[in-house]
Amino acid sequence: MTPPESYNKLKERMKEIATLQSTGAVLYWDQEAYLPKRAFDHRGDQLAQLERLGHEWFTDPLVNDWLAAVEESDLAKDKESEAAVNVREWRRLYDREVKLPTEFVEDFTRTTTKASQVWAEARQKSDFSIFAPLLEKIVELCRRKADLIGFETEAYDVLLDEYEPGAKTAEVEQVFKALRPELVELIGKIAAAPRKPDIGILRKQYDIGKQRLFAESLGAAQGLDFQQGRVDESTHPSCNALGPFGIRILTRYYLDDLHEGITSMTHEVGHGLYDFGHQDKSHWGTPMGETASLAIHESLSRLWENIVGRSREYWSYFFPQLQRIFREELAGVGLDDFYGAMNYVTPSYIRVQADEATYNLHIMLRFELERAMIRGDLKVKDIPGEWNRRFEDYFGIEVDNDANGCLQDVHWAHGIHGYFPTYTLGNLCAAQFWSQAQLDLPDLLDDFSRGNFNRLL
Amino acid sequence: MTPPESYNKLKERMKEIATLQSTGAVLYWDQEAYLPKRAFDHRGDQLAQLERLGHEWFTDPLVNDWLAAVEESDLAKDKESEAAVNVREWRRLYDREVKLPTEFVEDFTRTTTKASQVWAEARQKSDFSIFAPLLEKIVELCRRKADLIGFETEAYDVLLDEYEPGAKTAEVEQVFKALRPELVELIGKIAAAPRKPDIGILRKQYDIGKQRLFAESLGAAQGLDFQQGRVDESTHPSCNALGPFGIRILTRYYLDDLHEGITSMTHEVGHGLYDFGHQDKSHWGTPMGETASLAIHESLSRLWENIVGRSREYWSYFFPQLQRIFREELAGVGLDDFYGAMNYVTPSYIRVQADEATYNLHIMLRFELERAMIRGDLKVKDIPGEWNRRFEDYFGIEVDNDANGCLQDVHWAHGIHGYFPTYTLGNLCAAQFWSQAQLDLPDLLDDFSRGNFNRLL
Repeated sequence: MTPPESYNKLKERMKEIATLQSTGAVLYWDQEAYLPKRAFDHRGDQLAQLERLGHEWFTDPLVNDWLAAVEESDLAKDKESEAAVNVREWRRLYDREVKLPTEFVEDFTRTTTKASQVWAEARQKSDFSIFAPLLEKIVELCRRKADLIGFETEAYDVLLDEYEPGAKTAEVEQVFKALRPELVELIGKIAAAPRKPDIGILRKQYDIGKQRLFAESLGAAQGLDFQQGRVDESTHPSCNALGPFGIRILTRYYLDDLHEGITSMTHEVGHGLYDFGHQDKSHWGTPMGETASLAIHESLSRLWENIVGRSREYWSYFFPQLQRIFREELAGVGLDDFYGAMNYVTPSYIRVQADEATYNLHIMLRFELERAMIRGDLKVKDIPGEWNRRFEDYFGIEVDNDANGCLQDVHWAHGIHGYFPTYTLGNLCAAQFWSQAQLDLPDLLDDFSRGNFNRLL
Repeated sequence: MTPPESYNKLKERMKEIATLQSTGAVLYWDQEAYLPKRAFDHRGDQLAQLERLGHEWFTDPLVNDWLAAVEESDLAKDKESEAAVNVREWRRLYDREVKLPTEFVEDFTRTTTKASQVWAEARQKSDFSIFAPLLEKIVELCRRKADLIGFETEAYDVLLDEYEPGAKTAEVEQVFKALRPELVELIGKIAAAPRKPDIGILRKQYDIGKQRLFAESLGAAQGLDFQQGRVDESTHPSCNALGPFGIRILTRYYLDDLHEGITSMTHEVGHGLYDFGHQDKSHWGTPMGETASLAIHESLSRLWENIVGRSREYWSYFFPQLQRIFREELAGVGLDDFYGAMNYVTPSYIRVQADEATYNLHIMLRFELERAMIRGDLKVKDIPGEWNRRFEDYFGIEVDNDANGCLQDVHWAHGIHGYFPTYTLGNLCAAQFWSQAQLDLPDLLDDFSRGNFNRLL
């Protein structure tokens, strides 16, 4: 077989795997949006089967042969060529995955599917003890994964690497260490400022049907194409790519919180636009058609949510529309009042509802706790106590119950320890991309006040 | 390997295949309920991949060896034993499937997924020419399937056998021939009757949100368990089993037709109750846990839709509730008026909205046409003309457009030629089951007037 033939074999195989994974993404989306309670066990079997197949196809020794043939050939000489990029990334993943036995992969998927369901119940009842036994098993599985793959410094490196290729725990720690005092100072200054936005504006009774229409119109204005994607509702907002054309946004609305339905949408649409943004669909299913890392993916959602979607220019365009929809509720509210409320900074329990400034403290807390879990320094049973202690230390408020504390996020139920840091790394990337965008595209903010996002997109 | 070991291998393999197929069912359900237009091509790839895998796993020569080992053993001696029943059915399917090349199976799935999308557009525009090229390919694929599997008398036998194992085209023809004059006479008598129900009762403006709540309450009363199932909306009503616990009903509501939302629900819930009804979930994924035939499955939906859901007793319980929901619209309407309207018999274009009496004529028409298509006696381009000609002959009304004619059903786009007859066979089975149920369970109709369906269930 010639190197080009090997490379074609690889592409064919990887696209088969990507197709299978996109089927898994449908199952997962459905699980988050619609799956009835008693159907969860079987969903775990379905997902585990696809994981097993994908793992088998990917870790096939033939893949290693094909990779080697391309790596040693002229095809990979130019490090920026399509073949070199794809093969480099496949090799990295192959060397990880081949160390995980198929039974382990299946067990991991089945356990985390079950855990997602149990977590939802625990959160609803605000009772950590319901979730603890499964979380113990998941932490054990994560540690086992790290051991199987192997690491130099610490187990958490292996988990982090899955979402942020090449990143090291110690580096993240350094970045967070530098960011933290500046953040604390900023939050302190905001708290001491004499002028406070009236957050009450957002806490009236806002009809959910109207909120839905408005939020979907924001998504459409940003660039969400409803011929390729759709929006449904779920407990936990997310954006799911179900194939080269098929973005499924899950969002949520609260009757007494106008803010949540808006920012969940602007955020998730940011993810969706990044997925849509891979214009050359022939790369679909290969690293050339995928994100470089989760921080990069997250930077786009953050850019849209925070930098675009909380800007005064954005609201100078959309607030009059919103005011027409909620005529009574927003009567007498000025643009600056609304803009202020959308940017209100204050310590709060829930990460996904946190403001732009305190948000990163939520991430630092989770990073520290999950790193301690993986190291074995923190037992699962001690999580609620430790969470609450640190939370009070960082935010100055006492956690009233586990649903508002350590049970609020689904991530640990999914076994995706190592994922949280990418949110703050994403914020930092977003700031850098935005800074460059403003240099490259003069008067970019003016576009927003005309409801035009094409140049940014 | 001992025969019990072979049997266990078979069960394991078949449950793997059933799990994979249940994943395909999720993809299909999503396609019918939610798939955006531009995502259809990739959905075809996803479904084709699962079909290919399932086909490969099922037609593996090992399956043949395991089957042979059990067939020749004591395990299969008692023809009514679990092993004998399962192996007999697997053998029947194996001998069919093994004759179909994998590429054929993939091509069939990809073509019919594409066709479902194109059909929807053609129906919307009422333009048969949009759908014709794909239908031509599908008819060709169906004929090729019949040729590959082989037949004694006619190709249509092979297709029919997929849905109604063992049934022959000539037998269906005989049954229909006997039924038809009696039906025509009955419909004639009804048409000549001096008393006519006022169908206008059902054709006011009925708020869809309220219709939805009412219809779901009917489903719940009949026995639909929302911990295991859910209801969504689609162009074409259906009931999809996504696993041992996971019934997804798709239904539809029209603002100006109260009838449709009710009967679609009572019908599809009938299917769902049958699927839920397999109490011993250990049989899931084997013939012992599946329906004997589609006519049997359909007989349950028909029983609930027509015999239960159009009975005076059923409405004596539910009509007062409906009247409370639609206070103004149903003011002054009596139970007998409503009961009469729900049982109105008249020739009409759309099969799924047809009354109980004329319904079977719709099936006979389709049976004749698809049989002619498969025989090669009817060209695809001649379908609209032939449909309209026969329709006028059977129903005495002229078809006004293809959306109300030959484009109304999705079945041909799915390539499930041979399926239609099972609807009428289901009606006939339902009548027989009902007759026996009344003998076995005295005063059964009285239960309905108390909203109680437990004995029947």
